[in-house]
Amino acid sequence: MAIKNHPNKNVNLNGWMNKLKRIEEKTERLGLLSQLGQILNSTLDHKEVRRRAMEAATQLMKAEVGSLLLIDEEKGQLYFEVALGDQEETIKKITLNIGEGIAGWVAQKGDPLIVNAPEKDSRFFKGVDERTEFKTRNIICVPVKVKERTIGVLEAINKKEGEDFDEEDLSLFISLADQVAIALDNARLYQELEEMFFQTAESLADAIEKRDPYTGGHTQRVTMYSLATAKHLPLKPMEMKWLKISAVLHDIGKIGIDDQILKKPERLNPEEYNAIKQHANMGAEIIDHIKQLKNIIPGVKYHHEQLDGTGYPEGLKGEKIPIIAKIVSVADTYDAMTTDRPYRRGLNKELAIKELRRCSGTQFDKEVVEAFVKAYETGEI
Amino acid sequence: MAIKNHPNKNVNLNGWMNKLKRIEEKTERLGLLSQLGQILNSTLDHKEVRRRAMEAATQLMKAEVGSLLLIDEEKGQLYFEVALGDQEETIKKITLNIGEGIAGWVAQKGDPLIVNAPEKDSRFFKGVDERTEFKTRNIICVPVKVKERTIGVLEAINKKEGEDFDEEDLSLFISLADQVAIALDNARLYQELEEMFFQTAESLADAIEKRDPYTGGHTQRVTMYSLATAKHLPLKPMEMKWLKISAVLHDIGKIGIDDQILKKPERLNPEEYNAIKQHANMGAEIIDHIKQLKNIIPGVKYHHEQLDGTGYPEGLKGEKIPIIAKIVSVADTYDAMTTDRPYRRGLNKELAIKELRRCSGTQFDKEVVEAFVKAYETGEI
Repeated sequence: MAIKNHPNKNVNLNGWMNKLKRIEEKTERLGLLSQLGQILNSTLDHKEVRRRAMEAATQLMKAEVGSLLLIDEEKGQLYFEVALGDQEETIKKITLNIGEGIAGWVAQKGDPLIVNAPEKDSRFFKGVDERTEFKTRNIICVPVKVKERTIGVLEAINKKEGEDFDEEDLSLFISLADQVAIALDNARLYQELEEMFFQTAESLADAIEKRDPYTGGHTQRVTMYSLATAKHLPLKPMEMKWLKISAVLHDIGKIGIDDQILKKPERLNPEEYNAIKQHANMGAEIIDHIKQLKNIIPGVKYHHEQLDGTGYPEGLKGEKIPIIAKIVSVADTYDAMTTDRPYRRGLNKELAIKELRRCSGTQFDKEVVEAFVKAYETGEI
Repeated sequence: MAIKNHPNKNVNLNGWMNKLKRIEEKTERLGLLSQLGQILNSTLDHKEVRRRAMEAATQLMKAEVGSLLLIDEEKGQLYFEVALGDQEETIKKITLNIGEGIAGWVAQKGDPLIVNAPEKDSRFFKGVDERTEFKTRNIICVPVKVKERTIGVLEAINKKEGEDFDEEDLSLFISLADQVAIALDNARLYQELEEMFFQTAESLADAIEKRDPYTGGHTQRVTMYSLATAKHLPLKPMEMKWLKISAVLHDIGKIGIDDQILKKPERLNPEEYNAIKQHANMGAEIIDHIKQLKNIIPGVKYHHEQLDGTGYPEGLKGEKIPIIAKIVSVADTYDAMTTDRPYRRGLNKELAIKELRRCSGTQFDKEVVEAFVKAYETGEI
């Protein structure tokens, strides 16, 4: 429709209105992209970033399904990190070789791709549709790159309302993939640092433990038992982390015990035993210097307290003993019972469990013993 | 201008064109917002996030100046984290009380604010303009919130081309502040984890060192000397980190040395001295279990090698000795010389420096000794 009196008489109002509509939609989607970027970046949990990436892909592309495939460089394969709800388990078992399928092509070339007629595209891998009874109508797929290196592929399948994917989708999807890459990389860096922390604490605790010739592998086992027990208790994720560090470092106070006592092959006399008992307080003192580890002091300091108040170093009773210390206490005692000492053989597992049960409610917390036994019965211990 | 024949005859074409122009601009700015979000989130270095936040504020708001003020909760004050180039040092000295000035108001209320005529606004704090000869024409200021808690304030001053800040600016600026909050929080979490790692390594290394009664504070001093020396050498930031960890853990192998040798107050006989020498290899073995610390093994293993090949454990010569080991070696020897031993008094600093110089080129690397002496002369050691 031509417009009278306008300098450019050929201006078409419908054209204008369409352009305005398109650009308004684009504005909305850019706003959404910005929001999705925030959501992606507001966690440093790698698994959670992966989940959010898939959701963001689905939402931004107005697609039926979104998925994230990551590259396993050693195997030269792409695996589905997350995928659609119902079919998740089926899809997770599917891997693509790099170069295979649309996603494999994108991973290999590092270029984005839209395929609006997959049945006519020789690159299309029919395996997923066949195994999931899902019908791929169209697909948009972009590389996820960290510093020029392709680490995976983000894809969305079946644009809603029967439309095809277009260049605008592609431009938005590339931006989303960039945000996904950043969020994944930050989460990876955080996770690697966390692993470095745990491994260093474990290695040093191990080295400290090795001075004591009768406890090879004790720290590792106590950590494993503690975490397995905690799974059956209502601990928060943060408390699980504190528990893990407490268990790893529970005996570091032994660094302050003299060789002649620590390495004595015979039973200790009361004075020597008193010296050994100092390790609980000494461990707490070492950790006291670590600002961010305040929360694990109770686990280290009180792992020899007993429910009836006959433990050490403070003779705390019942609910005064922190839950983390109660867990480490059961794990620690079980390991001591089931390993050999120079002056006695270790008990077998069943007898040790019986002994834990016998002392449940006096020495040990009942709920913790119950959780420990559950973990034992399910084969986790 | 009314349009004939259109269902809505009151549609005004100029109005349409203006609307289109505005919305096109908004689209462009949303694209920029998305880019800035990526830039903000692609680092976990807190200082770098702060710098980028300021730049992003300036760019997105088309302003002359952007700044980020963070809240010091203990002092109840806001301080300028980063500000404009020339005046940075002046501005950094200025703090605002919470509630004081526009930024202080925003920090207190947690609400965003535009002030297009600051001279008429009683909240405006004239101190910054007075001290910097800067003229504030208008100001837009939004809170930076992490999980509902205001941690700071992002502001932009003097919109370019004489315009006022408007509602669209505000909406974009709030989104930017959300991204800044996320990036700052991620960087803080990463930094806290890194500190926890260093503090734990230091505390455990300290505890291990404490078995040796003659070396109180040795680990800390060697770390400090090593880092001060490295400042005068062309080390990359990553190498500085490796150096720090190496220095902290350089003597952890001593955990494997028996008390009777480690605590012997007299000079050691050759056999005992050989046992002590094992600590270099033993330290390397402990670290070998920590996947992410492969790069610090050389620093721990070779900190007793000497340039002429007369050191241990491998008798490496010259350039075969890694730079990190060379640095720890000088720092370690200097500390050993300047502290008391049961069988001799420590040297004074000047004599120790003389001794380092005497052995430069035979025992020690010349450049490293030079760097150490520079650090000594500037009072860093």
